[in-house]
Amino acid sequence: MRIQIGIVGYGNLGRGVLAALRQNPDMQAAAVFTRRRPESLGLASQSLPVVPLTEAEKWKDKIDVMILCGGSATDLPVQTPALAQHFNVVDSFDTHAHIPAHFAAVDEACRQAGTVGIISVGWDPGLFSLNRLYAQAVLPQGKDYTFWGKGVSQGHSDAVRRIPGVKDARQYTIPVPKALERVRAGENPDLSARQKHTRVCFVVLQDGADAADVERKIKTMPNYFAEYDTTVHFISEAELNARHRSLAHGGFVLRSGVTGEGNKHLIEYRLKLDSNPEFTSSVLVAYARAAHRLLLEGARGCKTVFDVPPAYLSPRTGEDLRAALL
Amino acid sequence: MRIQIGIVGYGNLGRGVLAALRQNPDMQAAAVFTRRRPESLGLASQSLPVVPLTEAEKWKDKIDVMILCGGSATDLPVQTPALAQHFNVVDSFDTHAHIPAHFAAVDEACRQAGTVGIISVGWDPGLFSLNRLYAQAVLPQGKDYTFWGKGVSQGHSDAVRRIPGVKDARQYTIPVPKALERVRAGENPDLSARQKHTRVCFVVLQDGADAADVERKIKTMPNYFAEYDTTVHFISEAELNARHRSLAHGGFVLRSGVTGEGNKHLIEYRLKLDSNPEFTSSVLVAYARAAHRLLLEGARGCKTVFDVPPAYLSPRTGEDLRAALL
Repeated sequence: MRIQIGIVGYGNLGRGVLAALRQNPDMQAAAVFTRRRPESLGLASQSLPVVPLTEAEKWKDKIDVMILCGGSATDLPVQTPALAQHFNVVDSFDTHAHIPAHFAAVDEACRQAGTVGIISVGWDPGLFSLNRLYAQAVLPQGKDYTFWGKGVSQGHSDAVRRIPGVKDARQYTIPVPKALERVRAGENPDLSARQKHTRVCFVVLQDGADAADVERKIKTMPNYFAEYDTTVHFISEAELNARHRSLAHGGFVLRSGVTGEGNKHLIEYRLKLDSNPEFTSSVLVAYARAAHRLLLEGARGCKTVFDVPPAYLSPRTGEDLRAALL
Repeated sequence: MRIQIGIVGYGNLGRGVLAALRQNPDMQAAAVFTRRRPESLGLASQSLPVVPLTEAEKWKDKIDVMILCGGSATDLPVQTPALAQHFNVVDSFDTHAHIPAHFAAVDEACRQAGTVGIISVGWDPGLFSLNRLYAQAVLPQGKDYTFWGKGVSQGHSDAVRRIPGVKDARQYTIPVPKALERVRAGENPDLSARQKHTRVCFVVLQDGADAADVERKIKTMPNYFAEYDTTVHFISEAELNARHRSLAHGGFVLRSGVTGEGNKHLIEYRLKLDSNPEFTSSVLVAYARAAHRLLLEGARGCKTVFDVPPAYLSPRTGEDLRAALL
């Protein structure tokens, strides 16, 4: 019997989960749950039930794990604890400051219902977090560096779009090569935000908007752009749609540390992703397998990637893993 | 109460464990166990008991975890199962073909005694294995690559030293930059042994030995050198000792995979180590902490890095880890 997966939400992430499940023969999409009109999802040809989210509870006995594909701002804080009352859940909650509160809410729901939740799954938070943990545990004396990009930051793009006169925008976060070099060389530099990343904005103006004013408002926006070297390009809507639709992303986690009488060590983890949402979905699917196994062995409550034994992500047996990958 | 660590064997690894424990305030070296004369270890000034290995059992109540620092050829296959009858144990067993037998022997000893063992800990096997597992679980459609070096291979150096006429030797394993480039570019190449690594030998001849004959014997040695582009340099003993004592090593684990309709992804993990043994020791110490925690929560038997929740490697609480590293 394959592990039955419910997909909650059918945007980029939800589509990515459906694609990832096709690569994992021990798992199967059981249904997609949506707040939209089920017919509007374009899934009619796939013989996959599309169910109004309000009716999810009826699927309680048919779903092993729900993968939540909504956003961290308003969807997941409500949906993950609510669904955890009836289902094992996995989400990609990524609002860092609110993780403790989200964890507590999901943990309470899971413990009352006897379910397992795994939150904040993806690559950052997720695989990057794991690498920070492993590297710190192995090299307690050292320094961490995380670089993101090159890739579009949704949050920064949204911030530009909120400026009056802006019709549309994309913001790329780009690591500064020189900073990466210095970390790799073992210099252990102290790096400011400006020294680590540059920001490049492609902006479509509304008719009659003042380009110089928009550019000034972007470059002086605190927390988002003022602390960085920011470049602004004004382009047409046609060009934005033609040349800036890539979902590529990635980044680097490094730890530079010292052991003994000054021996230096560098641990570097790098991701280069054609599709940020499809990769995140692939991580979610692997952790859905882990959630199912944790439940079967008696675990309950909310977990993160830090709590999950690596072997639980794989469909292979312990014996097989030791022979093939150790 | 700090976690009390016994160090079994006091070569490069054992010294590395002692150095690593100084960086981990929640742990403490309780004693060094040795087959040599205790006075010969040069530890008299350290107020650290040095105990004949034959008397280890008397320390049963004073040691939380034994870290075994012997070799995989003859030490660990005997010592790890024997000590697991009385202690929690962590070792760096790295003879890949014999891991299943070693696992079975340690598991049996641990289950009879109610102890926890973690075998094959270090960077390969160890952190590299973990990265292969995580990357395969996340990208089931893809291809794995492991490159080692630049660094001295003990096994290949030993193989050269066994040739008649050779007084001493060091063999460096070096990744082929072009091969790494092709993997990073997402080409998913099929790479032969020769295409992935080159081998460079520095050899000191015995008086009267025939250099051409030694060189031919090295370059045609099956499994070790015949399948590689091998360069042989003959140097003096003084030069070997002056310029080829580095313990530096490292390498790369990469997985190149595809999701959805052909989106490519690259996961790369890299280690650059000044001291192979000190880094390995640092990994052993982190897993000794995990062995202790596993025991406290009721686990028994033999484990590998695949079975250990990442959080158990860290002295920090779950709450702290989620706030700081997730």
